[in-house]
Formats: sequence, C-alpha cells, structure tokens
Amino acid sequence: MAERKSKEKSTQGSAEDRLIARHFRPLARHPGALGLADDVAVVALPPGRELVLTTDAVIAGVHFFPDDPPDAVAKKALRINLSDLAGKGARPLGFLLSLALTKDVTDDWLKKFTAGLRADANKFGCPLLGGDTDRTPGLVTASISAFGTVPRGSLVRRSGARSGDRIVVTGTIGDAALGVVLRRDAGTAERWRLDRNMRDRLLRRYLIPEPRVALAEALRRYAHGGMDISDGLAGDLAKMCRASRVDATVEVARLPLSAAARTALAAEPALIETILTGGDDYEILASVPPRKLAGLRRAAKAAGVTITEIGRMSPGTGRARFVDGNGKALSFERPSFSHF
Amino acid sequence: MAERKSKEKSTQGSAEDRLIARHFRPLARHPGALGLADDVAVVALPPGRELVLTTDAVIAGVHFFPDDPPDAVAKKALRINLSDLAGKGARPLGFLLSLALTKDVTDDWLKKFTAGLRADANKFGCPLLGGDTDRTPGLVTASISAFGTVPRGSLVRRSGARSGDRIVVTGTIGDAALGVVLRRDAGTAERWRLDRNMRDRLLRRYLIPEPRVALAEALRRYAHGGMDISDGLAGDLAKMCRASRVDATVEVARLPLSAAARTALAAEPALIETILTGGDDYEILASVPPRKLAGLRRAAKAAGVTITEIGRMSPGTGRARFVDGNGKALSFERPSFSHF
Repeated sequence: MAERKSKEKSTQGSAEDRLIARHFRPLARHPGALGLADDVAVVALPPGRELVLTTDAVIAGVHFFPDDPPDAVAKKALRINLSDLAGKGARPLGFLLSLALTKDVTDDWLKKFTAGLRADANKFGCPLLGGDTDRTPGLVTASISAFGTVPRGSLVRRSGARSGDRIVVTGTIGDAALGVVLRRDAGTAERWRLDRNMRDRLLRRYLIPEPRVALAEALRRYAHGGMDISDGLAGDLAKMCRASRVDATVEVARLPLSAAARTALAAEPALIETILTGGDDYEILASVPPRKLAGLRRAAKAAGVTITEIGRMSPGTGRARFVDGNGKALSFERPSFSHF
Repeated sequence: MAERKSKEKSTQGSAEDRLIARHFRPLARHPGALGLADDVAVVALPPGRELVLTTDAVIAGVHFFPDDPPDAVAKKALRINLSDLAGKGARPLGFLLSLALTKDVTDDWLKKFTAGLRADANKFGCPLLGGDTDRTPGLVTASISAFGTVPRGSLVRRSGARSGDRIVVTGTIGDAALGVVLRRDAGTAERWRLDRNMRDRLLRRYLIPEPRVALAEALRRYAHGGMDISDGLAGDLAKMCRASRVDATVEVARLPLSAAARTALAAEPALIETILTGGDDYEILASVPPRKLAGLRRAAKAAGVTITEIGRMSPGTGRARFVDGNGKALSFERPSFSHF
C-alpha cells in the first residue's frame, strides 16, 4: 500500500500528475473532461436523449497477450466497449479509463498505448473524459467505462426479439476465435492450410476488433432486438432468446464466414464449435422484422457494414438451435465463453 | 486467452451469468440497470442537470490489504468514488463495477463483498447500474465508475478558489494515514501511546472512509472551489492553488485532528508530515468566501458534518504553505501521495 518512494518534492505536482499531463491530456479534448485537471468530468446530454453506460476491462494474459502491441491493447480495450454501445443503438459520448500499470511498463509502451487510444477516440468520436492510473504488482489492466446516448426510450434491447423476426449478423463470425488459436500455436496455420494472408487476417481479427458503431442508428430504426456478439454467437443468441422468450433457428450454411475461416473449417470440420462459441467476434446480432429487412440492408450498405440473414425466431422458451443442411441440430460442449 | 475449462453446458446461461444473478442482481434496483440482463444500463438525467463522472480502482495489496474484510473492501471502492462526487457538489446517480477476481476468491468472500456494496449503495442512494466480472491470475481489483448530477453549470471546481477565500476542511485530517502505519506495524500503537479505542479509530478510518455526500449541496451553494482530499491535504491544497492561481496559508495549529492523531503527534512530532501528506482522508477541502462561511457552517451542522476553517487564500502563483505558531513554514519531503 502506499508506495512512497516515488513521491516527489515538486511544485509542479506529482509524478502521476505529470504522467497524466504528458500521456493522457492530449486525448481529453472534450470540454467536459476539464483538461483532466479536476477530479471529475461533467457532461450535458443532448436534449431528448438518455445516457447509455457500459464497462469492460482487459487484463494482460487474459484478454490480450502481454507482448501484443500497446496500441492494439488500447484499441481493444476501447472497442469492446464501443461494440456494446453499437449493439444497443447508442451513439458514443465519451469514456473513462482506469489503468493499472506494472513497474516494467515503459514510457514508450505508454506512448504507444495512448497513441492507439487517441486514434480510436478520434475515429469513433468517443473522447477520453477522465481516468485513474495506478501502479500494480499484478497484471496490466485497462478498465474502460464507455458512455453513449440514444433518443429517450429507443434503446435496442436484448429482450426485444419477437417470433417471426429474421436473425441478422454483421461481418463474419468466428475469425477472432480462430485467431486466438493461431496466436497460441503458430503451427496451426499449416494444419488448417491457411496461406499467410489468411493467417494474418485471423490474427488481426483477434488483436483488434471492429466495433459496428456505424450501424447503431440503423439498428434503432430497423431492429426489434440487438446486442453485440462477444461470448460467441451460440451463447449470445441463446441469451437473446432467453431474454425475449423466443426460440431461434440458425442455418449453419448461411453463416457469414471469411475465406480464412472456410479454409480452416474445410481442413478441420470440428472447428464449427470454435467458430460459434469461441467469442471475441464483436459483430452485431439483431432480430429484425421481415418488413424492415430491406431498410436495414440499405442502411448497412450505406454504413459500409456487411449484414447476413442467418435464421429466424419462432415461438419458444429461449432455445437457440444451429441446424445443418439436413435440418439436424448441432450440439456444443460449451455454448458460450465464460470466465467462471 | 479464453480459459475454457469452466465453460458449461447449460440452458440457464453461463456460470458468469449465474454469478451475476446470484450476487449482483439484488443490488441493481435502478430500473435503468435492466436487471443486469442486458449489455448496458440506460438512464435519463433529471431536467436541468448535467452528468458528473469519476473513476477510481482499488487493488489488493495496493489500496487495501488482501485480508481486509470483503465488505470493507467493497465500501472503500465505492466510497472513494462517492467522495470525488461529494467534493464537486454532485448528487449520486449510480455506478458501474468492473471486478477482477482471483481463483481463490470464495463464494463467501463475494457474498460479503456484495453485502457491503449493497449497504452503501442504499445508504448513499447510489445504485449499481452495471458491471463486468473477470477471473484474473493477478490481484483482486475493483474498478468503479461513479456518476452524479449537478444543476447545469454548478459543478464545484478545483479551479474556483479566489484570493481572500477561507480554507475549510471537513472532519479530521490524517487519521487514515496514521491508520495505515498502524495496520502495517501493530507495535506502533504503543510507541504513539494510543489506547485501544484510539488505535481502532485510526485503523477504521483507513479501512472505511466516510465520504461527505451530505455536504455536496451546501458546497455548491457556498464554496468557490472544492475537491475531496485523497492524496494528502498538503498536495491536494497545492493542486487547488495551482488550478486556481492563488496561494494558500494554513495555520497548522488550526488543523482538525482527532484525539488519536493528537496523541500520536505528541509522542512523535514528525508525524505532522504523515498527517498532512499521507492521503486517504476522503474529507472535503473547500475555498469559501468569508461572507458565505456562516451559511456553510449552518448547512454543515444540519448535515451532521464538522467543518473547520484552517487558513486563507491570497494572491499568488499556486503555493500552499503550512505555518506553525511562529509563522514559520513547514517543509515536506514529499508533499503528495503518488503512485508514480
């Protein structure tokens, strides 16, 4: 507790103040951040909108590899939160960062980390509002709370899916789950018959997710229910089904898979479980009434986001089924990623 | 990295879902928490008010002792954030919790932790809005982001102090800093000639801070500038002076000290540095114009919070001086606690 040795005699504030001024103040361009020179941030919401809040942390050795590039670590930390907001139809407002650093974190690491954070804060219109930095004898941990807004009453809920809705996902599914397998064992690429491009693509999808922020507004307009896919499509779809009290049937043949994932799956068909349950997709899962599908398609195209219809919701009690070409349901050992 | 071994086959959701339902859902009584059954929370602000945001983490072995009672750890995690809000004049709205748990955390530990959190969420009117739980191979870490509101434009700023203002603090100063010394070395109590009650009081002040939430509204009404004291009065007052571009002079003889602190200080006069720079006070520091002192006193009395005038602000460049009975300024080795 209270390591005192780095306390310093200075009229310019503590070493912590200087670290914040040097690395973080340039990111805090929102006037409500008060230049990170107060204990809090203060923000007025646009009229008629309400606040959407989420929090997610990344821990070295758990959510990222300790030797991942620092800018990628920062981007992942922010993007997994932006993905939560996007899946709810929220427009980003800003974020708070609670950062625990180990003694071996260098100034250069921190410089790269904040450069990545800054690039994404700008890219996604989500400025740093405030934060907290600590030294830890444990593991580097970046905990972010991100905030967005929606017009009052328009949050896209997990519980909003209805029988008859079509099930839609963005992007491609399973790439990051395959990427983390590759990251652990480089020899896997050969076994899966991936070329270098395919391997790099999967690794990249694990390293830096792509939150579908651009689709948030369309989701509010066209979807009954929505959420981002972070713990695997199978488990997250089941969560939506339970919350909405419907059943889901997904045709596995319709799943949007990258060329890399298709290649790996052809070499090792059992990977379908990894693809559907591995997690870290950060795509959006939406339940959309048939009459609104065309509108969503147009909006997604305009936003530059691919969407694919993969199945439909039916009356039920909360089951998600994945069926093959013969109508036979797949079963999974573990339907969803969980830390516990 | 995805430790998969605890993934489970269950139609009732993952073990993580069940952990949340069991331990955390009872705390999430705000309707905007959506029963912790979605990925986000959603909250409308009261009309005319703006959002105040802060974040602070506690790490085992850094901010608390690993064998501290779990309910006290939870209370500390929430209260240090509530203290930030109180020092800015904000009324609590709710909080997000990002919790990293080690494998040795038992269900009983978690039960006590959430009981403490629940008691304080109720006591201070600050409900759990959402959260994130992870297993970590590192150290137990609770990172909280807390939110409050103020009437638009009325945030009490660190930069608001003016020359001529009186410097006011709540409660007593230095108890927690002495408490942590006692916690590390039980023999100290004898050296400081503390009786059992005094020792316990100091230990308690370190273990569970007392955020001055009840004074927030009065602070908005009567103070030019304000902040909570978390890194020691000397350093935090210097921060206020730098932000406000004034100098401060504090008469050490006027400092509000507990009977325990006075006893320790009599035995060991050098402890004045610990008292003024040790941190963890979580009292409020305010800069108040003389004509508003009486009003603040009345409001503080009504709120059940002791306040003491300890000095004044003068024209200057950001220096905080602590003078003894002869007008001689104390000098400190390290004016403020810093992790870096």
